[in-house]
Amino acid sequence: MYVVKSPLSDDDLKTVADALQGTLVDLVDLSLVAKQIHWNVVGPRFRSIHLQLDEVVDTARQHTDTVAERASTLGVSPDARAATVAASSGIGDVPEGWVKDVDAVGTLVDALGAVITRMRERVQATDEPDPVTQDLFIQITADLEKHHWMFQAENG
Amino acid sequence: MYVVKSPLSDDDLKTVADALQGTLVDLVDLSLVAKQIHWNVVGPRFRSIHLQLDEVVDTARQHTDTVAERASTLGVSPDARAATVAASSGIGDVPEGWVKDVDAVGTLVDALGAVITRMRERVQATDEPDPVTQDLFIQITADLEKHHWMFQAENG
Amino acid sequence: MYVVKSPLSDDDLKTVADALQGTLVDLVDLSLVAKQIHWNVVGPRFRSIHLQLDEVVDTARQHTDTVAERASTLGVSPDARAATVAASSGIGDVPEGWVKDVDAVGTLVDALGAVITRMRERVQATDEPDPVTQDLFIQITADLEKHHWMFQAENG
Amino acid sequence: MYVVKSPLSDDDLKTVADALQGTLVDLVDLSLVAKQIHWNVVGPRFRSIHLQLDEVVDTARQHTDTVAERASTLGVSPDARAATVAASSGIGDVPEGWVKDVDAVGTLVDALGAVITRMRERVQATDEPDPVTQDLFIQITADLEKHHWMFQAENG
Amino acid sequence: MYVVKSPLSDDDLKTVADALQGTLVDLVDLSLVAKQIHWNVVGPRFRSIHLQLDEVVDTARQHTDTVAERASTLGVSPDARAATVAASSGIGDVPEGWVKDVDAVGTLVDALGAVITRMRERVQATDEPDPVTQDLFIQITADLEKHHWMFQAENG
Amino acid sequence: MYVVKSPLSDDDLKTVADALQGTLVDLVDLSLVAKQIHWNVVGPRFRSIHLQLDEVVDTARQHTDTVAERASTLGVSPDARAATVAASSGIGDVPEGWVKDVDAVGTLVDALGAVITRMRERVQATDEPDPVTQDLFIQITADLEKHHWMFQAENG
Amino acid sequence: MYVVKSPLSDDDLKTVADALQGTLVDLVDLSLVAKQIHWNVVGPRFRSIHLQLDEVVDTARQHTDTVAERASTLGVSPDARAATVAASSGIGDVPEGWVKDVDAVGTLVDALGAVITRMRERVQATDEPDPVTQDLFIQITADLEKHHWMFQAENG
Amino acid sequence: MYVVKSPLSDDDLKTVADALQGTLVDLVDLSLVAKQIHWNVVGPRFRSIHLQLDEVVDTARQHTDTVAERASTLGVSPDARAATVAASSGIGDVPEGWVKDVDAVGTLVDALGAVITRMRERVQATDEPDPVTQDLFIQITADLEKHHWMFQAENG
Amino acid sequence: MYVVKSPLSDDDLKTVADALQGTLVDLVDLSLVAKQIHWNVVGPRFRSIHLQLDEVVDTARQHTDTVAERASTLGVSPDARAATVAASSGIGDVPEGWVKDVDAVGTLVDALGAVITRMRERVQATDEPDPVTQDLFIQITADLEKHHWMFQAENG
Amino acid sequence: MYVVKSPLSDDDLKTVADALQGTLVDLVDLSLVAKQIHWNVVGPRFRSIHLQLDEVVDTARQHTDTVAERASTLGVSPDARAATVAASSGIGDVPEGWVKDVDAVGTLVDALGAVITRMRERVQATDEPDPVTQDLFIQITADLEKHHWMFQAENG
Amino acid sequence: MYVVKSPLSDDDLKTVADALQGTLVDLVDLSLVAKQIHWNVVGPRFRSIHLQLDEVVDTARQHTDTVAERASTLGVSPDARAATVAASSGIGDVPEGWVKDVDAVGTLVDALGAVITRMRERVQATDEPDPVTQDLFIQITADLEKHHWMFQAENG
Amino acid sequence: MYVVKSPLSDDDLKTVADALQGTLVDLVDLSLVAKQIHWNVVGPRFRSIHLQLDEVVDTARQHTDTVAERASTLGVSPDARAATVAASSGIGDVPEGWVKDVDAVGTLVDALGAVITRMRERVQATDEPDPVTQDLFIQITADLEKHHWMFQAENG
Repeated sequence: MYVVKSPLSDDDLKTVADALQGTLVDLVDLSLVAKQIHWNVVGPRFRSIHLQLDEVVDTARQHTDTVAERASTLGVSPDARAATVAASSGIGDVPEGWVKDVDAVGTLVDALGAVITRMRERVQATDEPDPVTQDLFIQITADLEKHHWMFQAENG
Repeated sequence: MYVVKSPLSDDDLKTVADALQGTLVDLVDLSLVAKQIHWNVVGPRFRSIHLQLDEVVDTARQHTDTVAERASTLGVSPDARAATVAASSGIGDVPEGWVKDVDAVGTLVDALGAVITRMRERVQATDEPDPVTQDLFIQITADLEKHHWMFQAENG
Repeated sequence: MYVVKSPLSDDDLKTVADALQGTLVDLVDLSLVAKQIHWNVVGPRFRSIHLQLDEVVDTARQHTDTVAERASTLGVSPDARAATVAASSGIGDVPEGWVKDVDAVGTLVDALGAVITRMRERVQATDEPDPVTQDLFIQITADLEKHHWMFQAENG
Repeated sequence: MYVVKSPLSDDDLKTVADALQGTLVDLVDLSLVAKQIHWNVVGPRFRSIHLQLDEVVDTARQHTDTVAERASTLGVSPDARAATVAASSGIGDVPEGWVKDVDAVGTLVDALGAVITRMRERVQATDEPDPVTQDLFIQITADLEKHHWMFQAENG
Repeated sequence: MYVVKSPLSDDDLKTVADALQGTLVDLVDLSLVAKQIHWNVVGPRFRSIHLQLDEVVDTARQHTDTVAERASTLGVSPDARAATVAASSGIGDVPEGWVKDVDAVGTLVDALGAVITRMRERVQATDEPDPVTQDLFIQITADLEKHHWMFQAENG
Repeated sequence: MYVVKSPLSDDDLKTVADALQGTLVDLVDLSLVAKQIHWNVVGPRFRSIHLQLDEVVDTARQHTDTVAERASTLGVSPDARAATVAASSGIGDVPEGWVKDVDAVGTLVDALGAVITRMRERVQATDEPDPVTQDLFIQITADLEKHHWMFQAENG
Repeated sequence: MYVVKSPLSDDDLKTVADALQGTLVDLVDLSLVAKQIHWNVVGPRFRSIHLQLDEVVDTARQHTDTVAERASTLGVSPDARAATVAASSGIGDVPEGWVKDVDAVGTLVDALGAVITRMRERVQATDEPDPVTQDLFIQITADLEKHHWMFQAENG
Repeated sequence: MYVVKSPLSDDDLKTVADALQGTLVDLVDLSLVAKQIHWNVVGPRFRSIHLQLDEVVDTARQHTDTVAERASTLGVSPDARAATVAASSGIGDVPEGWVKDVDAVGTLVDALGAVITRMRERVQATDEPDPVTQDLFIQITADLEKHHWMFQAENG
Repeated sequence: MYVVKSPLSDDDLKTVADALQGTLVDLVDLSLVAKQIHWNVVGPRFRSIHLQLDEVVDTARQHTDTVAERASTLGVSPDARAATVAASSGIGDVPEGWVKDVDAVGTLVDALGAVITRMRERVQATDEPDPVTQDLFIQITADLEKHHWMFQAENG
Repeated sequence: MYVVKSPLSDDDLKTVADALQGTLVDLVDLSLVAKQIHWNVVGPRFRSIHLQLDEVVDTARQHTDTVAERASTLGVSPDARAATVAASSGIGDVPEGWVKDVDAVGTLVDALGAVITRMRERVQATDEPDPVTQDLFIQITADLEKHHWMFQAENG
Repeated sequence: MYVVKSPLSDDDLKTVADALQGTLVDLVDLSLVAKQIHWNVVGPRFRSIHLQLDEVVDTARQHTDTVAERASTLGVSPDARAATVAASSGIGDVPEGWVKDVDAVGTLVDALGAVITRMRERVQATDEPDPVTQDLFIQITADLEKHHWMFQAENG
Repeated sequence: MYVVKSPLSDDDLKTVADALQGTLVDLVDLSLVAKQIHWNVVGPRFRSIHLQLDEVVDTARQHTDTVAERASTLGVSPDARAATVAASSGIGDVPEGWVKDVDAVGTLVDALGAVITRMRERVQATDEPDPVTQDLFIQITADLEKHHWMFQAENG
């Protein structure tokens, strides 16, 4: 059976593995939510928000890959199947159908805010166990918080 | 309320809308499945399959966007939220955990085969109602069938 | 005298030639109309619409070339001189002077709608006589309908 | 109502506005004429002239945009609709149908010559009222005269 | 033994396989013929035709790959060995030695014309059995007919 | 001591040096003001204006370099230190803190207008003394006036 | 009124906000000082130092943007107006006029040294309150220290 | 009749012409054989060999052009028609149908080995008559031998 | 004599200097070892591993430069001469001669594992003395651990 | 006989033609002189000056082409044969053999100075006869004066 | 005094130096002649020859640099001043004024032929003294002979 | 056991293998030495030499790969492990610690000179046994001699 000799102790590994798996699910869901609104937004700000959402998708997809491969690197099998994402994402439900532009911005502010809160906790949790993973989380948090600012400023 | 005056009759629109929504879900799931195995594959062919799977992801993501925007173009709100994908994808369950390379190839052969069968039916179904959508489906089918060949040849 | 031996019968050629010449004129006019509003639009959405219109111009110019060269390929001399365009375009008159952004969007919705209706008829008409030309028309229609959606969503 | 406070006096503005509008129409027509012959030329020099004409189109389209935006910059609404171009272009009629290569070159020599003559007058006319516009006209004239040389040399 | 489960019935597969194999041979031979003249052409139009022929080679090589991989995709082994090409190409013999430019153009007009005639039949033949392959043939035909026009116009 | 033998007379050099130093300060300040609002703008048009302001920054920075190096070329030491800019810029005070999008546009209209007025005087002043510097000023004016139009149209 | 709900406590926010505002001012001034010397340096090492200074400008400008946007992200309005920079920069006065190359290097060694000292304090200060901002400061410090080395080595 | 005054004596030219014509045929056949296997290979190493073979095709096509143009340069008409290639290639027969990956590698080792042996003789033969052609052959041999190593290592 | 005034205390500098010099040697040796196997690997996975090893070389070379320049930045002369590397590298001996692919993977797993262990200690050691250097070590560790995973998965 | 109908009167044409021919010769010689020193410079500043001289060559070659084509555009045959350049260049003799770096800089200061003086006269001379040519001369002068500054600063 | 310790004996160096200096002059003159005709050619093949000549210029300029730097490398000061080129080039006189296209081709055939004859002698002469220089001459000869073929084919 | 059937006789292979292995070691050491000084150089010419050394590194690394793969191609296992390089390089010892710029140049002149002497012997030795390897050595020698010139000219 395939086993990776991890550089971390078992306890540390458990902590880091949970944080990575949680981040993975949040980011995959963020990419799906952003795409969902990318296609369903309507209103005078359609084009601007339509484009802005694809930048969120790019951020989410890029970090998704890094996070999942970090899990594999530590010998932890990552799980980002649709059912797993649907069951454990930290982002609340998004309604189906067309979305007015102002509501689209609000939805992203909420979704990003939810993920950021969890990321800040993960930055704390991984500080001792694995500074390498923590460094990755810090970069993800920085990017998400920047997107968060931009959507807040949109409705400012 | 936002309504698009569709160039199609109501009956034709119903047919095309179902085909587009089904394709959207299948392609999103295909991208998630391919990424899942991209991260979990192990064995002597790891690197080769790891890279090959990202080409499937690229194909799936690119067509996902075109299909969802085609739905919006016809006035049909696309739905690719995680729960929708988990509930209605045409691809069977993928087991969690590490995957041996030979099994990874088999999983892709099956997943691509399932989607292709449905795409061929959709090509038939949209021939009369909307040749524009049909043309899009034909191109998607061509790309999926090419990936299908390559994974079959891998285990040939 | 220069004569191309066409792969089509005379009747089929007549049908296809009319469809190509009509498409050529519509697309040239679409590029002129989109540029006219690109320069004359004013209002809070100026920048967004100004940029969006250049994407319509790119689409129109690119297909213009393909359509005219397809006519030449079949031995039919294409005609896209200014007077011909002014006399036979399927797009209605565009008023002179500055255009408010909301009206700019409405004008494009109408212009694109008019051309799309004619393109759908041309797709029908060329199905039997020349599938090569039909395939070209299907691609043009797909692109125009996507632009149509985006402008509709802008005013949604 | 939308009004731009122009940096020019009313008289100067009138002079510059006329020169810009005239240039705009000439350049749009030049691009249409060059494309018309690009598609209709036949003869042993077909390929060479076909390619050369697209360089004229590039020049014309690029300066068209600059000229129209210069008009808008000065608060003058530019007008490049097909009917306006057909009615007021400084380029003479171009016959319909196929064009022998030697005649294609002659047509371009004439068309470019006609526009250049008008551009030289506009360079004179705008010297005092607006050196910024004049500078733009000088660059356009330089480019058109270079094309003029090349077509003259072709038939030399 | 390696077998691909084809999405087509046996009869349909036979029809499509023949059309694909025939196209493959024609396109490989077209690339060899175009290169042969690319190197052997002489006369005042040498440079123009020398360059134009490499564009035919590009078209032929690109579609060759797509056609052969489409055959493999359907489970049909493609055959483009030199002897097979020499024995079954639809293009007539090309004389050895230097070729005057006017004859070079004539040779290409004939070669392209021969392949186009066969492609149009293949478009017909694959309409029912496999619209995916038919769509590919339509695109190849469009490209070849465009080259055909250009060489006809050269000698117009 | 370092002295450049200037191609200009002392009087002419004095005139040109003043104009270059003034332009340098105005452009550096324009880049700082545009960045200040780039970071502080809020409101529904946030993203559009945020992006548009960076294009002003690009224009200002690019011409800043050309203007300062033109001064050095004429043997005049350029001065763009923060205190110099703060003391002698032609742009009025910009308030601290967040800026609503409509006010952001107004601030840029004013700032660009103030610099343009001074640039037009500098174009006049350098006509005789140094046509090389004048040519540079004309290009700067053209670029600034185009940005001025776009911000005016935004609030049109 | 526009308010961002910060993920930091009020005390932490105050600490981080001061550090960000101080960094912003230092970096803007560094870019102005480096440009000032870029234009005024003379001597045998002119070209080498002229080019090297533009790399400092690039570093400073790039981090300026990141720092200001980090402030906005935390709900703190950044201030980089000329007067603010002139009043609160950590870099000492730079003399006006031409600068000998050896002095130019000395000036940069001093300027970079001053900013680095302050950056090291800011890295300390933000460790607890906000690791995301700290990470950004660490990267800025690394880049500035590398430039510092290169200018020290120049006069070594 | 078209005659090039060769810089070589008649005897030397004969030697060099034979070597160039032989190389041309070998390289065209190598490109056809590599493509044939590129499409027909199956097995666990499918993807790796599929990609590796296209690099052989690139090498062969690139040198084919150089060799044929070198022949034309010396006044010798090159001949790379399908029948000529089929009749005179130095590469043995390749079986039709699917090829297991290990056999695919073996086929390439043999094909490359056969051409390399002939190339080494041609390097010898052209040493005195034409060092320019010899230099070209040396480069071709170097490239082919490198491919030869890689396929040998594959089965090592 | 050339002395850099370090921002670190003497004790901290000693710790950091040792860590940097050790990392430098390890990374140079890693690049040499990876190249050695890049050239000597044989077996069915030759091509895959040959390519994968060059990615290790790229990582090692890139970080080598950053680490050595970080040492210079702190005023510590880096030493990466061949004899120094041979004497003090943390990677064990690599046998001479050809290497079977499975052994090649094992060698890299060991080499990367040895360096990673030392890097994790260096991350610990530099936490207090110099967070800038620590941050650099964290990034190096992340990259090496990712390569480590991939080679482990290869033999999984 | 080939005659271009010039837009200029005979007297104006004579003035402009002389200025263009003189500029052409000066620029060709400048490119030869700069290359001569590029190859022959020695001394501690070798690399810096070696690179800087190639930028002069680029400037000279680019403007050479524009100037010569401007002459042809006006119907004046340009003459830049080696003997013409040797006989009529405005740049003084350059000694043969190795050149110390400080002398290399001095030679360029002199050569650029000589050409600039003549360019300023040509800018004057063409003001009335042909503003298009004058505009070209102004740009050349600007570029040469910038190079002049840089070489003066080198020896400052 | 600057002296390079040459790896060649004095006799060998003399031979190689003469060959390099002669090549340098021939190539500079070739670039001047090709540009001269590039600007002065007229006739139906104007555009084709105009473009073709710039490819000769590119070849000549590129090898000029390599040859001159090879001389410097061997410690021989290269001389490519206009007077030296005019006095010692191996290319015959080129008449002033406009050149008909057919004569332009003839002039290039002669010029290239003259240089090639001398290059073949230089290849012989340097075989023993310096194979490095010989290798360079062989590459130059190959490139010139290819251009020679193309111009001969043009008039074939 | 892995054996490559070499195209060379045993004696020839022995000669060529020794030359390749020697070159490999020299080039790896040259890259390490150049990097060592790249990081340790100080003085007014720091930046120029720092950059110039990276070009030596690029040359050395690129040829290292070619040489090692040439050895593998001939069936000879290359050895470039640190200990082998330290033991058998042709470059003398380089002192540890900071290096003044003038000494840095001297070190490179010596190092390059030592390798060039050995390369010239290897060019001689491989002339008969393997012209393919000899051609590679000639190119390496040409590149190294050019770097040698540039460093000599630096201290000229």
